[in-house]
Amino acid sequence: MKAFAPILPGAKTLSRFTHLSCSGCGAEYESDRLQTVCTREGCGQPLLAVYDFRKPLPKRKLRRRVSSMWRYRELLPVGDDAHILSLGEGMTPLLPSMRLAALAGMQQLYIKDESANPTASFKARGLSMAVSKARELGVQACVIPTAGNAGGALSAYCARGGLEAHVFMPADTPEMFKLECRQFGASLQLVDGLISDCGRIIQQHPQRHNWFDVSTLKEPYRLEGKKTMGYEIAEQLGWEVPDVIIYPTGGGTGLIGIWKALEEMQQLGWVGSKRPRMVAVQAEGCQPIVQAFEQGKNEAEFFPHAATIASGLRVPFAYGHRLILKVLRESNGTAVAVSDAEILEAVQEIAQCEGLFVAPEGAATWAACKRLLKAGWLEESEKVVLLNTGSGYKYAGLQPTSGKQ
Amino acid sequence: MKAFAPILPGAKTLSRFTHLSCSGCGAEYESDRLQTVCTREGCGQPLLAVYDFRKPLPKRKLRRRVSSMWRYRELLPVGDDAHILSLGEGMTPLLPSMRLAALAGMQQLYIKDESANPTASFKARGLSMAVSKARELGVQACVIPTAGNAGGALSAYCARGGLEAHVFMPADTPEMFKLECRQFGASLQLVDGLISDCGRIIQQHPQRHNWFDVSTLKEPYRLEGKKTMGYEIAEQLGWEVPDVIIYPTGGGTGLIGIWKALEEMQQLGWVGSKRPRMVAVQAEGCQPIVQAFEQGKNEAEFFPHAATIASGLRVPFAYGHRLILKVLRESNGTAVAVSDAEILEAVQEIAQCEGLFVAPEGAATWAACKRLLKAGWLEESEKVVLLNTGSGYKYAGLQPTSGKQ
Repeated sequence: MKAFAPILPGAKTLSRFTHLSCSGCGAEYESDRLQTVCTREGCGQPLLAVYDFRKPLPKRKLRRRVSSMWRYRELLPVGDDAHILSLGEGMTPLLPSMRLAALAGMQQLYIKDESANPTASFKARGLSMAVSKARELGVQACVIPTAGNAGGALSAYCARGGLEAHVFMPADTPEMFKLECRQFGASLQLVDGLISDCGRIIQQHPQRHNWFDVSTLKEPYRLEGKKTMGYEIAEQLGWEVPDVIIYPTGGGTGLIGIWKALEEMQQLGWVGSKRPRMVAVQAEGCQPIVQAFEQGKNEAEFFPHAATIASGLRVPFAYGHRLILKVLRESNGTAVAVSDAEILEAVQEIAQCEGLFVAPEGAATWAACKRLLKAGWLEESEKVVLLNTGSGYKYAGLQPTSGKQ
Repeated sequence: MKAFAPILPGAKTLSRFTHLSCSGCGAEYESDRLQTVCTREGCGQPLLAVYDFRKPLPKRKLRRRVSSMWRYRELLPVGDDAHILSLGEGMTPLLPSMRLAALAGMQQLYIKDESANPTASFKARGLSMAVSKARELGVQACVIPTAGNAGGALSAYCARGGLEAHVFMPADTPEMFKLECRQFGASLQLVDGLISDCGRIIQQHPQRHNWFDVSTLKEPYRLEGKKTMGYEIAEQLGWEVPDVIIYPTGGGTGLIGIWKALEEMQQLGWVGSKRPRMVAVQAEGCQPIVQAFEQGKNEAEFFPHAATIASGLRVPFAYGHRLILKVLRESNGTAVAVSDAEILEAVQEIAQCEGLFVAPEGAATWAACKRLLKAGWLEESEKVVLLNTGSGYKYAGLQPTSGKQ
């Protein structure tokens, strides 16, 4: 490990962030300037934040900490607390779901309810972190291509920090996702296409050099926000690791982040070597990761004509595809595609058994869980965590979203 | 104080709940059976839960407690933990709002963001408590008249507990409030009228004797859930009491509850004798409490033709009107009515300064805050807490809701 300077020399900080390391080639990058992806020729892979684990960090330190993702302060990349833009994201409930479990004869089922986050989705974690860090490094305007929730979260944190937000979103995303961006004062551009088209348009935009691009895994810190889901699941289970985590996978940052958190927690001595089997859930109408996994590949391909009611899963190509597939294999996990009809049925079952009105992406995890039980991949006695990534309130009416409006 | 038996004899409990006391005549009622309001002839006033404060309860006990309203376990009325129906309600963020404060030259402005609750509103607190306690006492079906959010919250907790929910709601309530009740499997009846008409229809309903009525303050425990907002504000401010709390007042349970919490915390030695000035905010189109306060009365009258975009404030008569007016006077507080136009402007300002998409009821508190500053009632240097009671996501489009659909 190179001896990099601490983040922002002179700033007092609890953070043990030292530098960035390329997930592809291992090249190292400094932490005190803006970074995107690996700039080595032919690489271009995502950068991962590295921390100094040499000094012990007893978990009892957490006891008096704030009830948000910022409680894991040492393992987060922002230097000076003054730059933290927080709306209270994280430490969402991990809810034992006994009535739902009983439907399938299960005994230990939990739902991690990310709808309790600001802007009612898990995207708040990543964008609280990314916008805080970007602001610390002097950024004044951000841009994002989004399938829905990330646009609202970027807009909210930029509003709180006084930054400009530029959001590019498919025109046929449910209305609430557009409304929230406008409410937060962002500039919203609707695109006749998918999130991948939004990304392409940003690349060609004449203003792009004035904007910091916070696309999934094209900057290193959204991942650091998302990984806190992994810390919280372990802490909320009394530092036990569940047997299986089922995760709805669009860009996949959360899945990669939870895995990173488990490795970090083991280095800290907070958990042992046990790992959950990680399951990526996609929609039948957009399943690039599932196809690559089933074909035994290490890379996914662009999925044409992506269409599903779960707008957050309409991601035909995930920049972190290699990392996602690596986590699925290392964890002895799997990948499952479910239909829109199964998703809608799962929304109903969760609402009527548990009193949670989940996003269709979250419901997809329950649909997948039932499939995996039937297939015998999952045992009824195993401890399973479903990730509900957002709130059903944002998807008024749940109309199919693949057609043009 | 009569020597009542502890709640549910034999049940192990942390709760220090001893009995109920009538807020009007002081008559005492037992805690181990279902209670509604005072049954003494000519009284009929709300009952308040009384706790045993003789044994010390150091606040450091809270440190390891769950991050929800259930952390104040000793001061809550449910006996056996097994009956708690929790979706993680409470311990919502108290957000310093510096950019919003700067708009008005203020220095210490906070927003208590209740949209982070289950079902995205503060109603989750009261109904988590009421349904948990009702279930503990054997109830299998509940009924509620609602202006919107309470119906969804009742439906959610009944779903989680396996109870029937019967919801009566004005037909012109925003669509999302109806959708969530149906999602949670409640029976929803739309009423051509206001919440007061819903209440009247329930009184005449042939099934009413099979349902437990959880109308605001017609059972004693929603108040006990709502009071936890007061505990949290004090704890989150490091056990300091703010100078002013501005509260959007429909049924007013939260305002009464916060005041009750302050008295209890003083008995516990957790806070001193300082009290905030309590402000009730209503809409110009429905301001029974404001009118009564301005006329120096101790009782409010029914407000005819109630109409406002803030559907939660369309409560033409609050059952707790006497208690609300008493709190306003005891606290040297006041009551303010704001227009729908001011509410909409406040929604925008909060969204664009702070990244919070608040409910119109929550926005009304900021509109009132600006009025009180202009009037000189509020000093720019005072520490002020605004209560945002719910999420703007549930009011898609913010259409005026007074007309029929």
